[in-house]
Amino acid sequence: MKIITLTTDFGSENWFVGTMKGVIAKIAPQARVIDLNHGVSHFDVAEAAFSLVSSYNYFPHDTIHVVVVDPGVGTARRPVIACGDRFCFIAPDNGVLSFVAGREKHMRWFHADRPEYFLPHLSDTFHGRDIFAPLAAHLARGTDPVKMGSLITDPAMLEGAEFEETRSVSGAIKGRIMYIDCFGNLITNISSSAVDNRIEVEVSPLRPTVAGILPSYDSVPVGEAVVVCGSSGFLEVAVNQGSAQKEFNCKKGDEIFVYVTASKKG
Amino acid sequence: MKIITLTTDFGSENWFVGTMKGVIAKIAPQARVIDLNHGVSHFDVAEAAFSLVSSYNYFPHDTIHVVVVDPGVGTARRPVIACGDRFCFIAPDNGVLSFVAGREKHMRWFHADRPEYFLPHLSDTFHGRDIFAPLAAHLARGTDPVKMGSLITDPAMLEGAEFEETRSVSGAIKGRIMYIDCFGNLITNISSSAVDNRIEVEVSPLRPTVAGILPSYDSVPVGEAVVVCGSSGFLEVAVNQGSAQKEFNCKKGDEIFVYVTASKKG
Amino acid sequence: MKIITLTTDFGSENWFVGTMKGVIAKIAPQARVIDLNHGVSHFDVAEAAFSLVSSYNYFPHDTIHVVVVDPGVGTARRPVIACGDRFCFIAPDNGVLSFVAGREKHMRWFHADRPEYFLPHLSDTFHGRDIFAPLAAHLARGTDPVKMGSLITDPAMLEGAEFEETRSVSGAIKGRIMYIDCFGNLITNISSSAVDNRIEVEVSPLRPTVAGILPSYDSVPVGEAVVVCGSSGFLEVAVNQGSAQKEFNCKKGDEIFVYVTASKKG
Repeated sequence: MKIITLTTDFGSENWFVGTMKGVIAKIAPQARVIDLNHGVSHFDVAEAAFSLVSSYNYFPHDTIHVVVVDPGVGTARRPVIACGDRFCFIAPDNGVLSFVAGREKHMRWFHADRPEYFLPHLSDTFHGRDIFAPLAAHLARGTDPVKMGSLITDPAMLEGAEFEETRSVSGAIKGRIMYIDCFGNLITNISSSAVDNRIEVEVSPLRPTVAGILPSYDSVPVGEAVVVCGSSGFLEVAVNQGSAQKEFNCKKGDEIFVYVTASKKG
Repeated sequence: MKIITLTTDFGSENWFVGTMKGVIAKIAPQARVIDLNHGVSHFDVAEAAFSLVSSYNYFPHDTIHVVVVDPGVGTARRPVIACGDRFCFIAPDNGVLSFVAGREKHMRWFHADRPEYFLPHLSDTFHGRDIFAPLAAHLARGTDPVKMGSLITDPAMLEGAEFEETRSVSGAIKGRIMYIDCFGNLITNISSSAVDNRIEVEVSPLRPTVAGILPSYDSVPVGEAVVVCGSSGFLEVAVNQGSAQKEFNCKKGDEIFVYVTASKKG
Repeated sequence: MKIITLTTDFGSENWFVGTMKGVIAKIAPQARVIDLNHGVSHFDVAEAAFSLVSSYNYFPHDTIHVVVVDPGVGTARRPVIACGDRFCFIAPDNGVLSFVAGREKHMRWFHADRPEYFLPHLSDTFHGRDIFAPLAAHLARGTDPVKMGSLITDPAMLEGAEFEETRSVSGAIKGRIMYIDCFGNLITNISSSAVDNRIEVEVSPLRPTVAGILPSYDSVPVGEAVVVCGSSGFLEVAVNQGSAQKEFNCKKGDEIFVYVTASKKG
């Protein structure tokens, strides 16, 4: 039976996620549910999108990834099912699937508009339980997504700063802090591959500047800053056994500049 | 094999819940354990009771719901097993099952007083591991609860403010804030059905007042307050994409008054 | 199929633990993963060691316990597999298995140095996903640990204050606060068995002093301090329905003295 993962901004201090699992167990008793991340910042669609793209690919093919970060719960925003060659995704149609949409092939998108695949009684405030969990369970049972909704070609995608591509700006690569993890590491949207041949970098406007991409956190002494190729494929600014967030007093969304000060073959 | 849910005030920052799962896996390897809520405020029996009643009914029949919020751990308070037509419940006999007891039919109550269904060595401080987890596991294996304890007719029930019914007070319905969720939404004990035909309400003493029950959080602009029919069947005061708790500076237990200012057919 | 438990300092607010479960599900679909504790203080190897020794023994034999608290991630520190008569353990070789090593018999230690049991692409910063999860999954599938690494005889062990044994100091037993749980209970490293025949004790330097080991938290009135035999087999200082941490304003690592003021037969 299939795996269903759950990514939400519900936290782990209440009965919301547990109740979704009850609903799934009732419809698809054999489905296996894995908590992927319930610590997304409230209503932060871009953070949820980044969390998903950093993790979804490590699951077995045919996994159903459910994301419920849904500032528009109860409005007319559509619930969508997106199925590609390897995975299916279920989420509100608010752009939270933007990053995976750019990576997965042959995605077909459906507006899940058939109430027979929801719970019989819909609340206005908890569609994770009433809509998204039942959709995932029916999909896990093998229901064809074609039966569960209408094909659409205009899924919502993130735009603007939230989804900004990194850009070259007078010799520098300009990016953003996409996520700050529980260790205080600053995870950027600058692909590690973009800097493969640049052995010296400066990350600005962080002061003091951090020079060089090094192999691991403790390539520098305890308490010092370092730039590493992070585990999700993006540059990451860290402090060895410390918190880069505290050290540099920065926050999610802040701009980051990487300057090439020397190339490998320079 | 049956599902066992766990509701505790243990939090998710230690080995307590994980250890209970180890105990269950040892006795009932096929049982499936689902975390329902480990974020109940410490020792808050009424909050645990409210969490349970808001969620238990979404699970498959025959689910065993275990609640370990137990200020009296190590004292003579009884461990109880309560089995109704659809679910079984296991908890300390401190009133935490009051709300579900009012909803489930044909509940038989047992004082679980047979040490052969506990762990061989009992600590004085961790009955979740030593008593409640083993009881749940034996029940999941199919042991008849009649064998596991003595029938009782006097289970403890919550009384007073904690379990106060809503009341009509000079045209208003008086209730209480039962729970504040992670979004800062204020969940009351006023049943949504009690106000079905009252299309304009004022919630007091919240200032500024909130007028009208609306279909969803974003029936009002971002940052404004709204009253909705919450997902557990109770009125809920929210701020669209904000925190009603911060906006109104209120806390769990505070009184809430709903005034009927106009009726649907008025 | 076997059980794999996970103990980490990753917290529950991100996708790190979920991703490890994806990796395990891909390699060993039948393995059952149980979260043992993800709230270990960041980089705190001694706390993780204490958490593990307090819980591992409650799981079925053949359980695979994985610990990823790894300040040296990305360095040359070895990943180790340790198999005893009853359990296997997988962890970075940093002493985190010190406490269980002292209790389990016939432990064989392996340096897991065969990359074919890792993920194909190794990051420098997330060995929980790239090394430890795959090792656990292969072990759960039944791979012989002999094939997965080279036998070693010098696993790292904690030393000094972190692993200090309790000591008799002029009539007192000197120990340390090893852990403060979510209720504010102070869990020491003084074995309950060491004080079995001492019916009156003083715990110092806590002021006011706490006298006597009592059966349960509420052997004293609400709000008062009490010493109990904790559930992990160690003395524990608590405040009935309150927080000993706040009451005594102390922190992990603080020294504790237990004075024998009268013996049972004195």
